[in-house]
Amino acid sequence: MERNIKLVLAYDGTDFHGWQRQAGVRTAQEELENVLRHVLRHPLSALGASRTDTGVHARGQVASVATDSPVPLENLQRAIGHRLPADMAIVTVSLAAPGFQPTRDACRKRYRYRIFNCVQRPVASFAQRYTWHVWYPLDLQRLQAAAAELVGTHDFAGFASQGSPRDTTVRTVYRLGVARVGDELQIDVEGNGFLYHQVRNMVGTLVEIGRGHWPPQRVSEILAARDRRLAGPTAPPQGLCLEWVRYRVAEGPAVGTD
Amino acid sequence: MERNIKLVLAYDGTDFHGWQRQAGVRTAQEELENVLRHVLRHPLSALGASRTDTGVHARGQVASVATDSPVPLENLQRAIGHRLPADMAIVTVSLAAPGFQPTRDACRKRYRYRIFNCVQRPVASFAQRYTWHVWYPLDLQRLQAAAAELVGTHDFAGFASQGSPRDTTVRTVYRLGVARVGDELQIDVEGNGFLYHQVRNMVGTLVEIGRGHWPPQRVSEILAARDRRLAGPTAPPQGLCLEWVRYRVAEGPAVGTD
Repeated sequence: MERNIKLVLAYDGTDFHGWQRQAGVRTAQEELENVLRHVLRHPLSALGASRTDTGVHARGQVASVATDSPVPLENLQRAIGHRLPADMAIVTVSLAAPGFQPTRDACRKRYRYRIFNCVQRPVASFAQRYTWHVWYPLDLQRLQAAAAELVGTHDFAGFASQGSPRDTTVRTVYRLGVARVGDELQIDVEGNGFLYHQVRNMVGTLVEIGRGHWPPQRVSEILAARDRRLAGPTAPPQGLCLEWVRYRVAEGPAVGTD
Repeated sequence: MERNIKLVLAYDGTDFHGWQRQAGVRTAQEELENVLRHVLRHPLSALGASRTDTGVHARGQVASVATDSPVPLENLQRAIGHRLPADMAIVTVSLAAPGFQPTRDACRKRYRYRIFNCVQRPVASFAQRYTWHVWYPLDLQRLQAAAAELVGTHDFAGFASQGSPRDTTVRTVYRLGVARVGDELQIDVEGNGFLYHQVRNMVGTLVEIGRGHWPPQRVSEILAARDRRLAGPTAPPQGLCLEWVRYRVAEGPAVGTD
């Protein structure tokens, strides 16, 4: 009997050319598929919820794979976990509903973007692979005012880089929180989906506002003009992490600890 | 007038073949010397307090360089800081006493060894480059009992790997603290100096005791026998970090923030 299996994965994006399989480079999808083929012993391809870019990390990427193999979920989790390379980890394994597709069925995703906002480099905090180092001061209240303008259902064309084709550039941002935690600014974004580079372009724009180059109202102008050239630079990838993906579809109980 | 300048450095050891200059590989000493030559514009060599091994990190490595250049310390710090590669950082720059030598004059060093002690891999905590993943349970009280046996002035020959020549294998461990912090065990060791691989061999031995393979008294047996074969395996390098080095010698005021 074919089962559709849902996998929650973490990876350190530093040494990956992103999630999606591409010839000649190391990707998280290919590493996972190689392990799954070894364990399940049949040809397969794994779908992923989010095409994370080169250098972007994940603590809750969701993948799915269909299999006829009768191997119990517990054994599957252990076998995959032992065979993944050191910069990947399996978080949970569960039985998904028949036909479950991690991209199409996702209803909410959260990303965190970490800015190391300090004159000192993040090296001594072991954070330089996981943060964007912004050494100049950023004003938290300006950042929060600008962030509030991004929440809601908008046409985010002005925050999308060219790249992926799509039917619509309308998306909903449910939440955009900016908090200072020690030397870091943590930007948490939740939405029903994101355009290519949308989160990094929003962060790059917030930083221009936070440093005082632009007023917080700039956000509304970019949304209205739908013009990428008005927005800030794309923030570097290593600050970004896919935290989790949520689904409406009912699932079986998960194996593993979140 | 020649000045002797003391530099405190941090680096992420992941992509370095340790501190010490070696032909054909990337080392922290060489990266620092390249930057110093560029900034000071004369031939030079930088001395370091500790020859950290391949993969070992530093938050407080101490280096010194002699120079005739009149460049003020503030400018020197800024110039070095901007030119160092992203996985190195300058913490402070100060004027050292004439003849200051960071290795010979060190009176106390602290290392921290981090163990990620959890069934889950450290990937989702962004810690796999900075911890040793020990998935089996370790008993904190056994670790602490064994650690206490290591404190004091002992002949540590049983905990030294072959490698560096030395006059004596007697060293003093002033403090050896083991604490559980979330999913991690943190082992803090302070001493007047350490033999080759001594900290990693002590940690490897503590882990064998903590998992129940050996009684805490094993430590005293290894010390008495002075036989490396009785001690545990050398713990992997990525869990180790040189935290700081202290000196008796009076110094000028430092530039930078610790």
